[in-house]
Amino acid sequence: MQPIDYEAASPDVRAVYDDIKQARGVDDVNNFWKYLANEPRMLQHVWQSLKEMMADGALDPLTKELIYVAVSITNNCNYCMASHGAGARAKGASEDMLNELYAVVGLANMTNRLVNAYGVPVDEAFKR
Amino acid sequence: MQPIDYEAASPDVRAVYDDIKQARGVDDVNNFWKYLANEPRMLQHVWQSLKEMMADGALDPLTKELIYVAVSITNNCNYCMASHGAGARAKGASEDMLNELYAVVGLANMTNRLVNAYGVPVDEAFKR
Amino acid sequence: MQPIDYEAASPDVRAVYDDIKQARGVDDVNNFWKYLANEPRMLQHVWQSLKEMMADGALDPLTKELIYVAVSITNNCNYCMASHGAGARAKGASEDMLNELYAVVGLANMTNRLVNAYGVPVDEAFKR
Amino acid sequence: MQPIDYEAASPDVRAVYDDIKQARGVDDVNNFWKYLANEPRMLQHVWQSLKEMMADGALDPLTKELIYVAVSITNNCNYCMASHGAGARAKGASEDMLNELYAVVGLANMTNRLVNAYGVPVDEAFKR
Amino acid sequence: MQPIDYEAASPDVRAVYDDIKQARGVDDVNNFWKYLANEPRMLQHVWQSLKEMMADGALDPLTKELIYVAVSITNNCNYCMASHGAGARAKGASEDMLNELYAVVGLANMTNRLVNAYGVPVDEAFKR
Amino acid sequence: MQPIDYEAASPDVRAVYDDIKQARGVDDVNNFWKYLANEPRMLQHVWQSLKEMMADGALDPLTKELIYVAVSITNNCNYCMASHGAGARAKGASEDMLNELYAVVGLANMTNRLVNAYGVPVDEAFKR
Repeated sequence: MQPIDYEAASPDVRAVYDDIKQARGVDDVNNFWKYLANEPRMLQHVWQSLKEMMADGALDPLTKELIYVAVSITNNCNYCMASHGAGARAKGASEDMLNELYAVVGLANMTNRLVNAYGVPVDEAFKR
Repeated sequence: MQPIDYEAASPDVRAVYDDIKQARGVDDVNNFWKYLANEPRMLQHVWQSLKEMMADGALDPLTKELIYVAVSITNNCNYCMASHGAGARAKGASEDMLNELYAVVGLANMTNRLVNAYGVPVDEAFKR
Repeated sequence: MQPIDYEAASPDVRAVYDDIKQARGVDDVNNFWKYLANEPRMLQHVWQSLKEMMADGALDPLTKELIYVAVSITNNCNYCMASHGAGARAKGASEDMLNELYAVVGLANMTNRLVNAYGVPVDEAFKR
Repeated sequence: MQPIDYEAASPDVRAVYDDIKQARGVDDVNNFWKYLANEPRMLQHVWQSLKEMMADGALDPLTKELIYVAVSITNNCNYCMASHGAGARAKGASEDMLNELYAVVGLANMTNRLVNAYGVPVDEAFKR
Repeated sequence: MQPIDYEAASPDVRAVYDDIKQARGVDDVNNFWKYLANEPRMLQHVWQSLKEMMADGALDPLTKELIYVAVSITNNCNYCMASHGAGARAKGASEDMLNELYAVVGLANMTNRLVNAYGVPVDEAFKR
Repeated sequence: MQPIDYEAASPDVRAVYDDIKQARGVDDVNNFWKYLANEPRMLQHVWQSLKEMMADGALDPLTKELIYVAVSITNNCNYCMASHGAGARAKGASEDMLNELYAVVGLANMTNRLVNAYGVPVDEAFKR
């Protein structure tokens, strides 16, 4: 599958590209969107979802980017680490913050497996 | 493997339990620590790491709990979701914050695989 | 570990290579088999399993290739996406079909984690 | 988090529930939707995406359900296996088809790791 | 899917059950085989593979069981941890050995993600 | 994030580097440690844990390296396979041993998913 540039895009795809560019204040969309445009329905759904859920809300945009990076590290997705790592930095993440993020992700992946290994039952206090 | 209660614990294990109880202001340690105490060296290492890295730092303790929950959801670790979800609530996470967290984790797991599927190359702008 | 070419292969390995080439109508086997030949017993077991289970049966060969690609995307296995993506195309998969496949894989990975996050109990209607 | 029944739902959530019930010809929505309704924006996004992408298209609805089950097995999501397994059966999946599906998912998870272990390079023929 | 007991099994399935019982010196086969018997071809392939590869070879049977447990912990497969944990104990694994196994699995899952997070390039000395 | 060489390292980081070099009898530390040094607290914790838990104990160091490789294959961590594969070879792993390791890892990943797919209940004999 090849990426679809603005010039070669259908009107529907262009409309999504325009909305991404305006919402983010950028001149062009990232490679992710250009590949996803091979399935214009998903391009629309994914963008609408991310636009709404990654915006400021109960959680701030930086925290959301950090969570995105944490999941991407766990799943070993290089592109996602690069793009959301850049997003986190653009929203104010310092190197110290990223280093602590990496530490927490590493520790969580360790204790997740220690819990599996020992078959730890949920404490009564944690049941709701 | 069986959990090791305070009364049955060796002095080394008791010392860790005491430190956990004091640091967290609780009367007893969670099941996780009682099972991990079957390997006292790991009990010591894991506690020292979590005590230092989950404390307030470049990232605040609530953000770190949210990241922990995000990894645990991705890895499907029920105990970890329960314990760190409780930790997040104790540090101030509202239901709205958790709902947004779940949304971001879901979306990240989706786009991680869309990136894999299309083999999206990293944008020059994201390379450092 | 190095790949084992036909000329350097033992008679047992050559017999598997010959069977693969005949079953698939190709002149040479893929890299996967040349590396797996370092363990001739697994070469034999994996080939016998794939030969029988990927053939036409209750499910047609194209559907099986699509399932193979779906698992490989979820696990982020580049080689497997490339080889079984080529297999799917050779069996008739169009770009539209692959785009829909990618969409379903992305959505499933998202809802799998939303289910984890909310701890959704199985509906009575789904219990058998 | 608790499930949100129709009676307790907001008008926006009720509208999605009504659309799900009509599209699927059922009297009530599954637990998944009742939990996801805690985040009405995701309820809307996930339903709109699934409604459009799981419908008949380049791939038929049964094939899409099988792919959904394959991903859910790989990720060990019990609820998702139950709900989409039921969906596959409702759309015509026989026991023989499911048994072959399980076989392919198992084999793909095996060969994905054999490829990792041997570091198999992509064949020239698979590069596009 | 229901398990298939010896009495209800086809002659082909019975032959595999008999071989398992003889090879392992047991009166009945485990649940895993009774469920897998719904797909007699996979029953045959999986048993032949495990019988050959889990036997004494370049690695001893206990080491192989420990590796099996390590993978099963990483993938969070409860049944597999239970059955191969029992297998490891039957072959001589002590509680101390299992505790060290759990520690190594936890640490590996942590450092795997730290490597992802930092994008660590492979040292020249490790390239072959 | 950039790697931190000995010359540019802080006294605390240098002390860990010196301890690694002495414990392993090498002239320089691997890239992993040079990147992890961006978070000196984790450098310290990870090294202390690995130093203690990977040493000879209830399990010998070679078995521990093999377990490390098994987890790293399952998680698709290239760097970790390279570094711990080299570690295993340095501790005496033959090509035959590694080939059997790869086989067991592949088989475990397959049967883990077959267990998920069939929802196999744990045998009474495996419950403790």
